[in-house]
Amino acid sequence: MFLGKVIGTVWATRKDENLVGAKFLIVRHLDLELNEKDNFVVAVDSVGAGEGEVVLVATGSSSRQTHFTQNKPVDAVIMAIVDKLDVPLKELLEQQES
Amino acid sequence: MFLGKVIGTVWATRKDENLVGAKFLIVRHLDLELNEKDNFVVAVDSVGAGEGEVVLVATGSSSRQTHFTQNKPVDAVIMAIVDKLDVPLKELLEQQES
Amino acid sequence: MFLGKVIGTVWATRKDENLVGAKFLIVRHLDLELNEKDNFVVAVDSVGAGEGEVVLVATGSSSRQTHFTQNKPVDAVIMAIVDKLDVPLKELLEQQES
Amino acid sequence: MFLGKVIGTVWATRKDENLVGAKFLIVRHLDLELNEKDNFVVAVDSVGAGEGEVVLVATGSSSRQTHFTQNKPVDAVIMAIVDKLDVPLKELLEQQES
Amino acid sequence: MFLGKVIGTVWATRKDENLVGAKFLIVRHLDLELNEKDNFVVAVDSVGAGEGEVVLVATGSSSRQTHFTQNKPVDAVIMAIVDKLDVPLKELLEQQES
Repeated sequence: MFLGKVIGTVWATRKDENLVGAKFLIVRHLDLELNEKDNFVVAVDSVGAGEGEVVLVATGSSSRQTHFTQNKPVDAVIMAIVDKLDVPLKELLEQQES
Repeated sequence: MFLGKVIGTVWATRKDENLVGAKFLIVRHLDLELNEKDNFVVAVDSVGAGEGEVVLVATGSSSRQTHFTQNKPVDAVIMAIVDKLDVPLKELLEQQES
Repeated sequence: MFLGKVIGTVWATRKDENLVGAKFLIVRHLDLELNEKDNFVVAVDSVGAGEGEVVLVATGSSSRQTHFTQNKPVDAVIMAIVDKLDVPLKELLEQQES
Repeated sequence: MFLGKVIGTVWATRKDENLVGAKFLIVRHLDLELNEKDNFVVAVDSVGAGEGEVVLVATGSSSRQTHFTQNKPVDAVIMAIVDKLDVPLKELLEQQES
Repeated sequence: MFLGKVIGTVWATRKDENLVGAKFLIVRHLDLELNEKDNFVVAVDSVGAGEGEVVLVATGSSSRQTHFTQNKPVDAVIMAIVDKLDVPLKELLEQQES
């Protein structure tokens, strides 16, 4: 999985019939200091993630292993919302939030 | 999924027998300002996308989860046509269109 | 799929038993002007492609969806031979051939 | 598989229901001299790996082939803890540990 | 598949139970002149490859299509040992060996 931040939404009315109701979120990659990197993906949300939240994204066939994404043409899914990172000597997310 | 723009078509008469009728579109990657990047893929169209349209492309095994691509040797499919992007403080696609 | 040009062959007598008869071709990536890029893959041929031909290559699990590659340990297959590219205002392949 | 080092943990209470109990570890890529590289993934642990350990990580659909990860939306799993590398003329891991 | 050279072995006693008996080889990517590149993967051997040999490596789900790797958490397998490359005007591997 990669660490990312939700920064926006993609609206698409014309889409594969199995994707009706899917929420396409723009997720930017983060480094371990939670700085946004240049690259991003459009991922389907399966956990109710909102803008600004730090999330985990699973890609490839694994992104079809949630209840909502099963058998659908999606290759990236948000499957967890991050509370914090524990990296020895640092608690990066908490530092940023305080 | 990645954000792309349809910029052309690939014609191929000699191809896998399951691909008869497939429409191979050239899709260039876009950044969040909708500028075209250097890289591109050739994707099968499943939603009637046309040249110049901004689309979402699913890759890998997920690209075989549309009605048309099932069990076919394709690794990229256009599965949505983008209406607009909502990125906080900006509505990028609408700006560009106005 | 990516756009490539067949530039050679890999010979391998010791290989997985399911790969007897497989033809391993060296395919170099092409840009939209059909210039060869540095990167290449070794792909199994499923359409009778020959040296110098411009082809489409499917990778990953999708490369196992041709009659010959089914259930075999291959991750790249040539599934189409390109006649031409139609990119607005240009017909790149034809220009090069004339 | 890639060679990595466990450097931390990601905590996430809101996640896909199948991921309850999953341990998300931050794994940094290593080069052959076991120096940490910039890139990292978040991988589920299936072998009891701890911080500072050198591990092997399998990605993609293969990461769902362990007892714990089966049918779950994860795309990276730690499936082995490395004892040492044997590279001709060098025994890199042992050198570093002595 | 990519072209690589076996340059060493990874030893790991603590690993997924299905991987007992697996041989993890370090395979460095090669360019078409058979020069070693910086990147490498750890691949399971399915063809009896030895150090110094030039091989083909299949990655992703395709790496689970050999007799030994089936249903195991591995994402790279050596499925062929290269005898030679035929690239027009050059026979690279033979040149190097002579």
